[in-house]
Amino acid sequence: MDYYSSQISKLIEELSSLPGIGSKSAQRLAFHILNMPLEHVEKLSSAIIEARKNVKYCKKCYTLTDDDLCPICKNVNRDQKTIMVVEDTRDLAAYEKTNKYEGVYHVLHGAISPMLGIGPKDIKLKELMQRLQEEVEEVIIATNSSLEGETTAMYISKLIKPTGIKVSRIASGVPVGGDLEYIDEMTLFRALEGRIEL
Amino acid sequence: MDYYSSQISKLIEELSSLPGIGSKSAQRLAFHILNMPLEHVEKLSSAIIEARKNVKYCKKCYTLTDDDLCPICKNVNRDQKTIMVVEDTRDLAAYEKTNKYEGVYHVLHGAISPMLGIGPKDIKLKELMQRLQEEVEEVIIATNSSLEGETTAMYISKLIKPTGIKVSRIASGVPVGGDLEYIDEMTLFRALEGRIEL
Repeated sequence: MDYYSSQISKLIEELSSLPGIGSKSAQRLAFHILNMPLEHVEKLSSAIIEARKNVKYCKKCYTLTDDDLCPICKNVNRDQKTIMVVEDTRDLAAYEKTNKYEGVYHVLHGAISPMLGIGPKDIKLKELMQRLQEEVEEVIIATNSSLEGETTAMYISKLIKPTGIKVSRIASGVPVGGDLEYIDEMTLFRALEGRIEL
Repeated sequence: MDYYSSQISKLIEELSSLPGIGSKSAQRLAFHILNMPLEHVEKLSSAIIEARKNVKYCKKCYTLTDDDLCPICKNVNRDQKTIMVVEDTRDLAAYEKTNKYEGVYHVLHGAISPMLGIGPKDIKLKELMQRLQEEVEEVIIATNSSLEGETTAMYISKLIKPTGIKVSRIASGVPVGGDLEYIDEMTLFRALEGRIEL
């Protein structure tokens, strides 16, 4: 890229190191940034560095936040006795968007994966067990429907059952609006297994 | 996004204001950045602000650069008597990637568009005419093959012809590897018009 000056090259290089941004997108983004008002670029640049510098785990649910407690754990209107266990903060955000869940969360930051050498100690599982010493009525396991997610769900349910706390798993099946023809066999099998009497 | 803390929300918001980045991509990018080593985030953040702060036009060809002259205008091995006129710096980069062009460039920063109210005075055309007072052998017009690009090419060629300097236009036709069946009528017509005797 010696036809671009050094700082423009550096910007393109940095942008193309981000996930999902190839060299064409990086160039387009770079020239967009170079044409943006300086004030706006300053906001972008500082949003990046400030968020990264101040990010930490919520002391209760371990989601990423910039305060001791995240907005959900701080919210007295949420049902603190129901804990939904998710793999990461984006999964939490996905459930929040439904506007239907009133409990709180616990973010594992990963899933058990013998293949990748990720064991129960590598995710925030001990922290979940500690939370169960307070008053908890139900733990809803919402790890992904992947091999790792299912393994993690099984592992957690076995740990919690002896405590007498209710443990549940979100349903697996055909997505709303999904056309059976295009859905994989495993999902169809799950949908059949999990059928509900009408 | 009140389920994210304020700085994470701000980061997602800033990222989603960039072109081609929707709210899902912005979230993915944000969490990638939050998980990156601080040192790398500092490099990204400063590359953005430094490039923007120091960007200026090359005094000769008006491409974006961070020095008085761009790397191409400074290069004594380039043929300074052949000027390729392009609409923007990315078009220059596209031609540089061919590794086949040995002349220099002139970046217009736009194209004449009566529809958008962009006239000859709104692009770096006066600056091109000034360059022609030095020794120039050929001006190759490589504006886009759009209505605006063609209008601009016509306008420039009319301005330059009286000076006696050779003016050419890059060829328009079927792209290499292009299947005739999928190519629009206008391109097919151009390809026919521009046919070369074998």
